[in-house]
Amino acid sequence: MVGTGKFGSHALMRDSLVASGAEIVTVALRRVDLARAGEGDVLDFVPAGVTLLPNTSGAVTAEEAHRLARLGRAATGSPLVKLEVTPDPRTLAPDPVETLRAAELLIADGFTVLPYCPADPVLARRLEEAGCATVMPLGSWIGSNRGLRTRDALEVIIEAAGVPVVVDAGLGVPSDAAEAMEIGASAVLVNTAIAVASNPVTMARAFALATVAGRLGYLAGRGAVSAPTRAKASSPLTGFLGAQPGTVAL
Amino acid sequence: MVGTGKFGSHALMRDSLVASGAEIVTVALRRVDLARAGEGDVLDFVPAGVTLLPNTSGAVTAEEAHRLARLGRAATGSPLVKLEVTPDPRTLAPDPVETLRAAELLIADGFTVLPYCPADPVLARRLEEAGCATVMPLGSWIGSNRGLRTRDALEVIIEAAGVPVVVDAGLGVPSDAAEAMEIGASAVLVNTAIAVASNPVTMARAFALATVAGRLGYLAGRGAVSAPTRAKASSPLTGFLGAQPGTVAL
Amino acid sequence: MVGTGKFGSHALMRDSLVASGAEIVTVALRRVDLARAGEGDVLDFVPAGVTLLPNTSGAVTAEEAHRLARLGRAATGSPLVKLEVTPDPRTLAPDPVETLRAAELLIADGFTVLPYCPADPVLARRLEEAGCATVMPLGSWIGSNRGLRTRDALEVIIEAAGVPVVVDAGLGVPSDAAEAMEIGASAVLVNTAIAVASNPVTMARAFALATVAGRLGYLAGRGAVSAPTRAKASSPLTGFLGAQPGTVAL
Amino acid sequence: MVGTGKFGSHALMRDSLVASGAEIVTVALRRVDLARAGEGDVLDFVPAGVTLLPNTSGAVTAEEAHRLARLGRAATGSPLVKLEVTPDPRTLAPDPVETLRAAELLIADGFTVLPYCPADPVLARRLEEAGCATVMPLGSWIGSNRGLRTRDALEVIIEAAGVPVVVDAGLGVPSDAAEAMEIGASAVLVNTAIAVASNPVTMARAFALATVAGRLGYLAGRGAVSAPTRAKASSPLTGFLGAQPGTVAL
Repeated sequence: MVGTGKFGSHALMRDSLVASGAEIVTVALRRVDLARAGEGDVLDFVPAGVTLLPNTSGAVTAEEAHRLARLGRAATGSPLVKLEVTPDPRTLAPDPVETLRAAELLIADGFTVLPYCPADPVLARRLEEAGCATVMPLGSWIGSNRGLRTRDALEVIIEAAGVPVVVDAGLGVPSDAAEAMEIGASAVLVNTAIAVASNPVTMARAFALATVAGRLGYLAGRGAVSAPTRAKASSPLTGFLGAQPGTVAL
Repeated sequence: MVGTGKFGSHALMRDSLVASGAEIVTVALRRVDLARAGEGDVLDFVPAGVTLLPNTSGAVTAEEAHRLARLGRAATGSPLVKLEVTPDPRTLAPDPVETLRAAELLIADGFTVLPYCPADPVLARRLEEAGCATVMPLGSWIGSNRGLRTRDALEVIIEAAGVPVVVDAGLGVPSDAAEAMEIGASAVLVNTAIAVASNPVTMARAFALATVAGRLGYLAGRGAVSAPTRAKASSPLTGFLGAQPGTVAL
Repeated sequence: MVGTGKFGSHALMRDSLVASGAEIVTVALRRVDLARAGEGDVLDFVPAGVTLLPNTSGAVTAEEAHRLARLGRAATGSPLVKLEVTPDPRTLAPDPVETLRAAELLIADGFTVLPYCPADPVLARRLEEAGCATVMPLGSWIGSNRGLRTRDALEVIIEAAGVPVVVDAGLGVPSDAAEAMEIGASAVLVNTAIAVASNPVTMARAFALATVAGRLGYLAGRGAVSAPTRAKASSPLTGFLGAQPGTVAL
Repeated sequence: MVGTGKFGSHALMRDSLVASGAEIVTVALRRVDLARAGEGDVLDFVPAGVTLLPNTSGAVTAEEAHRLARLGRAATGSPLVKLEVTPDPRTLAPDPVETLRAAELLIADGFTVLPYCPADPVLARRLEEAGCATVMPLGSWIGSNRGLRTRDALEVIIEAAGVPVVVDAGLGVPSDAAEAMEIGASAVLVNTAIAVASNPVTMARAFALATVAGRLGYLAGRGAVSAPTRAKASSPLTGFLGAQPGTVAL
């Protein structure tokens, strides 16, 4: 999944979306009418074939989120919505109480809800029980590029979840996306890290590869991590420079 | 680059090497005669087209390393050697003094030396000045899967180096490889993480993708990392739910 | 602040509490009747002069917490209560929604509420607005000894809070307590790290010193942290072995 | 141990040294003649009773270090010397090869050598075998305030060392000193973190307390650290709100 904010131009955004290989693209509903002069609407630049996921970015109460979600549904005809309720202007961290309340409102109104949420195992469970299609806990503050600062909580959420877990927000480099997938996330959502890179298209491609790499790493079953005071050689240490070096057949 | 130790069978090693897409494969010289019963020599299982890099694994002095290197050259006809001098059985950490001395011996003897070394910026500079073709500082202890525990030093080494820097040892998951490449490493060497995975072939493929992802991430120019108390929204926060919601054109 | 669980004996707990120099001691209400055979009630072993803070440990809903809090008030005559609502048996992480609801219930009922809460800046603000006397965000899961795994969030909470911030849960070693105080926490609450140490009394003393050290470190105003590729010598590097070494007056 | 560089004035340095409670104070030999105008010699401000430890700060070869050490001995009459050989102007990281060579020179010349060295387990062993009285591995680059960036290596060095291990360089806050002591270091050396604090005297006191706290924490025997997905309550969870709440005796 990728976002659509902060790109230098709509064309650059489009090329980055293509390079990312993302299957889902999220768009802030309140941005749709903010066409850049001479560029046209942001939606005209979303590649064909991807799923459009309207989000409620900017909402600070459940009611505001609901209103935005309904606008999105009216326009797209789809019940999908990424729920964001973020009253804190410093961090744009999601409000756990309003997010749950908004999820209940939206689900009762027929939406398929993908909520951006704190990396909080209890809230994640509650959102799932309320009927959310996914949970989308944050790795670190939106736009911070700080990576997986909530890893302990993400591991618990992933272990317990009965719905897909999408790590959303804060991923700053491709290795962050790989790490999220390695601990079992179902997907990641990236926006700022791509949009503010010197070369967004290349960065989008890098995230695409890292996401697949992390998923394969998860599926491959990583080996154990040693304590700092124990090491094991890759090559057996017996027989070193043994009695018959002449037998080295190289 | 990948190593060849610890695999469950030679066939599994071969398939993993192919999946890794590695251009260079390192083999412990003292392992070459240790053919598994019924399997044949380890070298018979190295895919065609890759460069074989004999290593001096097990050497604890410069002279032992030199002797092993000469055996390798006699067999392969190539001057390439991965220098390892690791007297500490707990960590298999490289000996800085003996490694430098061995590098000088080998270079004087016509070898092209790729030394495994501590993540030490002064030693890295000295190895480069001695004529080494690369430096290969450790991320963490060999076989520990602990990742980039020496990141500060790696960043300094990479910034100052005039030869390629290959991060060797300790990379445990694909995101570790991506991280090493993102900070500017020229390559990574992975062995244990692949060999001890539940599915080595899949893990090898994951590392291959992550390495490319990290390199692209480096080339793409990552954005700044925010302080923990500052966040920036991907979508502009002005104009939210403005006076004319009817203008939302979605 | 210290807790009273997990100690090997009541006498050991008492000696540890004294050594900790803690001003507030929290006791699980549901433990008060669980006198160890032959040892008497846990409360008989709380040192004189410390403030007793009943907690609602074990509550999984706001109503259960309310009921426990009223039992405590009836017994102690004090309105102080540490609010814990922790429905997740894996992590004992606090429930953000129920904790806020319970805080509102208790405050309406005249309690002075000190809530254990997730390290969530929005919830912390809401708890403060609801009238809580402190917020007590977790460093890591209760009893895990994992340290400050939520540091980014703690920094934001502390920066924004208008009430004292007490870091509660997960502190495993004295340096964790120092770190929490260095970033500006008003206090820490420690229990498991002391109770499960080989020598709880010594560990209690260590935490007491570390807490003061961290507070002094905060007040002293730490210097800037350099980027990894920049260092500054403590001693000026000009004039080294200058023209007149004879002037060395030592 | 504390250093004497970077203080705003000699008087401030003296008060900070007293507050630190340090038993050993290190002074750069090349600074001794650099009396601040009107302040007198730096040595006049070292508190009575502490051991003065001349250092070879600024030396870039073994011979330079030897020359400085001899100047110090001529002046103090003591064989103690802190050996520093730091040719890299970016990091002031110690040179492993020249440091070992200098140690051998100095020991042969009758010095008691305390070497500043990389956090390198093999080099630490070699320095000990050469007869050094301690090893003093770095936590991070001098003056960087980055803390224990070399923790894995420090743990190995401490576990194996037969001489005291002093963590030198990079400690930025009191919790860093506590952490070094908790993993078993015998002492820490701090300079920049104190000297550049807004209030050096208070910071010196904070480091003094944290050092003792960390030592006590080490002696007390810390409990195990849980995996992220496991938590244990401080209070037993059996019997919660059991059948006879009336028995709560509080």
